[in-house]
Amino acid sequence: MLTPERLSLNTATVREQWDLRQCVEGCLRHGFGGIAPWRDKIHEIGLDEAARIIRASGLGVSGLCRGGWYTAEGALTEAVIDDNRRAVDEAAAIGSKYLVMVVGGLPEGSRDIVGAREIVTEGLAKTLEYARSVGVHIAIEPLHPMYAADRACVNTLRQTLDICDVLGDGIGAAVDVYHVWWDPEILDQIKRAGKERLMAFHICDWLVPTRDMLTDRGMMGDGVIDIKGLREAVEAEGFSGLNEVEIFSALNWWKRDADEVMQVIIERGRTSC
Amino acid sequence: MLTPERLSLNTATVREQWDLRQCVEGCLRHGFGGIAPWRDKIHEIGLDEAARIIRASGLGVSGLCRGGWYTAEGALTEAVIDDNRRAVDEAAAIGSKYLVMVVGGLPEGSRDIVGAREIVTEGLAKTLEYARSVGVHIAIEPLHPMYAADRACVNTLRQTLDICDVLGDGIGAAVDVYHVWWDPEILDQIKRAGKERLMAFHICDWLVPTRDMLTDRGMMGDGVIDIKGLREAVEAEGFSGLNEVEIFSALNWWKRDADEVMQVIIERGRTSC
Repeated sequence: MLTPERLSLNTATVREQWDLRQCVEGCLRHGFGGIAPWRDKIHEIGLDEAARIIRASGLGVSGLCRGGWYTAEGALTEAVIDDNRRAVDEAAAIGSKYLVMVVGGLPEGSRDIVGAREIVTEGLAKTLEYARSVGVHIAIEPLHPMYAADRACVNTLRQTLDICDVLGDGIGAAVDVYHVWWDPEILDQIKRAGKERLMAFHICDWLVPTRDMLTDRGMMGDGVIDIKGLREAVEAEGFSGLNEVEIFSALNWWKRDADEVMQVIIERGRTSC
Repeated sequence: MLTPERLSLNTATVREQWDLRQCVEGCLRHGFGGIAPWRDKIHEIGLDEAARIIRASGLGVSGLCRGGWYTAEGALTEAVIDDNRRAVDEAAAIGSKYLVMVVGGLPEGSRDIVGAREIVTEGLAKTLEYARSVGVHIAIEPLHPMYAADRACVNTLRQTLDICDVLGDGIGAAVDVYHVWWDPEILDQIKRAGKERLMAFHICDWLVPTRDMLTDRGMMGDGVIDIKGLREAVEAEGFSGLNEVEIFSALNWWKRDADEVMQVIIERGRTSC
């Protein structure tokens, strides 16, 4: 049971309907506790204006999506490092304590996933160094293994925490139920993470059947994930952040009126989380 | 580099083109070392005839696909146990040392994956008891996490071996590169498995993009999996079985002439494995 003030709207959920200003107004109108913008929504209206709107709203900011993609140019390049530095600055500007990382998949033409993971760890280390200097935390989002090739080669919470163990303070995990619900180790690894490293909690649902690997996520309650069980597991470790709703849904929710989507989220927060 | 006598044809690879007799003849014509039938191909011509044809061919049998699906009726039922007993008998009849298990996903309407896994372990224990009595080994196939809901709730080699540790002798793993290539732990877990528990090795490739979650597997060399690296890892543990080619491909290979498919497999065995 989640009341609206415990919910955060990830802007991807209504990315086809609303710009950032509309997202902020929608969150206020529906009584959401916070927002988590994607960078494209910020760039559309400019960072200064985005920061002004978000800060003036009084909404919590559960994270900025996203930095990472360290393998985009094969080897780690200055351009990729610079872009991540800008992402850190944007997180700081909008008052987000966390920058969420989708780390990138295999470089074009590569079959070397071990090598890709080395590039990612090196890139995270560089971004972390800068992030520490401005007080932003890095939240690695392990992505479902079906995205290992083309989006993120960090695919389990265990792997995420292994990287965090190496890199030290200021880096942790963004746990999205969609990506981790299947993992036989998830409850143990949530315990291992502990409060300091549980930086974000994202909710949606896994539909059966899933008709598209990227854009067919379900509304909470429409699928098979034990969302409440996972929420209680992170809360048992002391996580007290917002429950960020991130639903990629080209086939359904992106086609609906955004205020209707917000209402359904609120209902499902009450009944299915 | 794999020569044809080290290859086995999983009948699913040409399931739209050939019946079992044609598969056996095709394997002989192209110099394959073995075959791995699915049960539907056996039932089409009857078990006695299937056993006769396969035994007369002199082909190796790398496995029978598949038993399992323990969650099909929610709780474990006699019907499910009986069907698995028949699958064991069929494996013995065709001279297959191994019965490959796709264990089943969540029961209809369930969000309890922990409970599903308990049903599966209980079912495997029952089948194993019978299988030991007739000298058949049980090879659990961990399926890619994207199938956790609807096909198999055993999703990593670590989890597979944890189950094997509990159940004892005569049970191990069928390692399919498609399902495990992304796993950060795969090389360690292959070592942990060891020779006795590495019962089958399946090859194909992961395409980018993957257009269908079930039937868009790639021919070896067309995707991003380091097949050779994984093959060498199982061989380093002493695995000396056949390399079983299992490609579900509604969009491509199932539409082609089956002899052409066999020729491409042989080529790719040489160049991409």
